Amino acid sequence: MAHIQVPEGVPGIRSLVMYRPDTGKPLYELAGALLRGDSTLSEAERELIATYVSRLNSCLFCMSSHAAAARYLFKDEKGIVDVVLEDYESAPISAKLKSLLSIAGSVQQDARTVTPEIVAKARSLGATDREIHDTVLIAATFCMFNRYVDGLASFTPTDPKAYEEMGKRMVEKGYVLPTPQTGI
Amino acid sequence: MAHIQVPEGVPGIRSLVMYRPDTGKPLYELAGALLRGDSTLSEAERELIATYVSRLNSCLFCMSSHAAAARYLFKDEKGIVDVVLEDYESAPISAKLKSLLSIAGSVQQDARTVTPEIVAKARSLGATDREIHDTVLIAATFCMFNRYVDGLASFTPTDPKAYEEMGKRMVEKGYVLPTPQTGI
Repeated sequence: MAHIQVPEGVPGIRSLVMYRPDTGKPLYELAGALLRGDSTLSEAERELIATYVSRLNSCLFCMSSHAAAARYLFKDEKGIVDVVLEDYESAPISAKLKSLLSIAGSVQQDARTVTPEIVAKARSLGATDREIHDTVLIAATFCMFNRYVDGLASFTPTDPKAYEEMGKRMVEKGYVLPTPQTGI
Repeated sequence: MAHIQVPEGVPGIRSLVMYRPDTGKPLYELAGALLRGDSTLSEAERELIATYVSRLNSCLFCMSSHAAAARYLFKDEKGIVDVVLEDYESAPISAKLKSLLSIAGSVQQDARTVTPEIVAKARSLGATDREIHDTVLIAATFCMFNRYVDGLASFTPTDPKAYEEMGKRMVEKGYVLPTPQTGI
């Protein structure tokens, strides 16, 4: 049960932004700009960074929902998402994306460990300033979302089907605030 | 030097939101709603939670600037801010605020360690659902800001006077996006 009185049966962050919509609005706008806005990183790649950071923070809700979005976007080609969650170095993704995941991991652990060297490596593999910026901000943002969701013990569904539907909605509808009545 | 090309000489997060204003806008709106919006926690108390979390994350820029804002709001009465940064249990603040700082500390470390017991303790000392929600979200938000600022190695001034001015501005003007031309 959540630590505070939020709408019952509404999973994860959706119940929290229904509790306080005036903070929910910028949170959803931020997610929309970062994960769906214009970028030279694909939506699948950005969802993958979000999923990876959520796994490092052991946030089951965020990891499962964004993994579902990433699977939907990648068309689950070669089981990329699960390989990344297991060991991204061995995943069939670009060397550039691996270097960005490495930066995201440093941001999650202790952002002061993002060294000029790992940034230079990403750049040598083709990463632009904007891609480095967005990777750091996606990682930092999920360190927030993960803590918001788990710090208030919001409802975390256990049925994989529920996440599959969430992932599809997050891709097709984008990050849209839930309506106060239905939570959808 | 910052890891990416941001406006020179502009400190901390301000240089980053000038680099990407469409993500900067919701970030500043979030800070404004949380730290300046309506609340039964005073602005000074909320700035203190932000400062405490920034210290736990060793983010010198965020800690120094929000400490300055908190000092300005508390009128530096009894050196509250510095005592809290040293050992909040011995600080001349309410038992309720101490229990909220304890929740904020758990959120910073690993949000899954926010137990029903520490939430019940805060409630027994008078904390409301909304105060518990806001404490968790302020702590989570600063885990993001701290990582954004340090993950990109943004400019961290060393002159205490610079932070004093920042703190005053953050209180008097609120969280207002810097203008593209001047960074102010």
